[in-house]
Amino acid sequence: MSKPVVEICLSPELLHLHGLTGRTVVVTDILRATSCIVAGLATGIASITPVASLEEGRTLMAQGYIGAGERDGKPVEGFHMGNSPFSYMKPHLKGKKVVTTTTNGTQAIQKSRTAAQVVIGAFLNLSAVASHVKAANRDVVIVCAGWKGKINLEDTLFAGALVRKLEGFFVWEDDVVLAASELYANMRMDLHAHISRSSHYQRLAKLGVKEDIRFCLEIDRFDVVPVLAGDEIVVNKFS
Amino acid sequence: MSKPVVEICLSPELLHLHGLTGRTVVVTDILRATSCIVAGLATGIASITPVASLEEGRTLMAQGYIGAGERDGKPVEGFHMGNSPFSYMKPHLKGKKVVTTTTNGTQAIQKSRTAAQVVIGAFLNLSAVASHVKAANRDVVIVCAGWKGKINLEDTLFAGALVRKLEGFFVWEDDVVLAASELYANMRMDLHAHISRSSHYQRLAKLGVKEDIRFCLEIDRFDVVPVLAGDEIVVNKFS
Repeated sequence: MSKPVVEICLSPELLHLHGLTGRTVVVTDILRATSCIVAGLATGIASITPVASLEEGRTLMAQGYIGAGERDGKPVEGFHMGNSPFSYMKPHLKGKKVVTTTTNGTQAIQKSRTAAQVVIGAFLNLSAVASHVKAANRDVVIVCAGWKGKINLEDTLFAGALVRKLEGFFVWEDDVVLAASELYANMRMDLHAHISRSSHYQRLAKLGVKEDIRFCLEIDRFDVVPVLAGDEIVVNKFS
Repeated sequence: MSKPVVEICLSPELLHLHGLTGRTVVVTDILRATSCIVAGLATGIASITPVASLEEGRTLMAQGYIGAGERDGKPVEGFHMGNSPFSYMKPHLKGKKVVTTTTNGTQAIQKSRTAAQVVIGAFLNLSAVASHVKAANRDVVIVCAGWKGKINLEDTLFAGALVRKLEGFFVWEDDVVLAASELYANMRMDLHAHISRSSHYQRLAKLGVKEDIRFCLEIDRFDVVPVLAGDEIVVNKFS
């Protein structure tokens, strides 16, 4: 039997070049949306509903959801929390439903809905995601959320890290797989130093969230695989 | 005075994220359109007119132009030549006008027309292009032609090579500059081995054009800077 294919989509603006039907999509937005989702679900949040607009976020908050809102790296007024992984891990959130809307990550999730399964990936759950997509044994597209359509370093490096974990189990034709894998191999020994040169790090460092960033670059802190089930992201029961 | 900015656009599909007005655009399609243009103009072709469609190519051929046509890596029937740099360097082309249409490169040139100046870049004229854009001292966008919208390795590596030449003279915000520069630094010692793992190499190797590829990876063979002047690409007189 032939091996499944792995592709990397470096920006949601390039999504139309990748078929999603029948495939697993791994969405990543390292700083910080998917890192928050992984951290929150791993520490007890019941479900996280990603929505594209602030308005949809407010509608669900009116129904009792905890609201997380971020635009341009900053928390949005009127929401319970912003986009820091630490705020997703608070004890009072255990068993709660959260709605989240962010600049890039939640948009990328919405655009990936036509896939057979949407998986949420971050360095925090890298190996768990790799095991899950290997077991699923479908073609996989790793979708990097980027920053307002532009390609960013941290999501590209996560994609590189994931394809390295898939080596031998998947085949590829896509040059981006080669490039991202090579970049990760060269930068892995000091991920933080390399990412601290990136545009988004500079943007967030100005907002005083350096601790968030260091946390988001921890590898395999959690052993959960969040997946989209209907409108909600929940921990996959069979992973 | 503040330094000008350098950006890299890895696919024509991302061009809308980069402002072109008032900037220098360097278009590259290493395998093989821009390598052919550089080789041809350096060895005596008078002008090369890039057109998007085969039909436009045929119209100019009817007016006496030499026609170069390529689709999917293969020469197009009815055209005088395909997309091999060697066919662009034949003695009988000296002083002639050529019209060219290719799968990716000529499309990227057409989409870049709103820039202050469009420059044709390849490994073959890397240092000449770097000197030219430094002297122009405008913001610069390096546009990679890719393959049917997808990002490819060889154009990304050229962009990385060029930004390394511009270091100290330009500033950047774009993570792609960082990534491409790092990739080139890691692969430069054996460009051919790395590019032979790329998708387009595999595609072209099947078509038996390995000699073309080796030639297209030669650095600084020519000291010319082709620029778009009206509808034609000609050697820049002041470079």
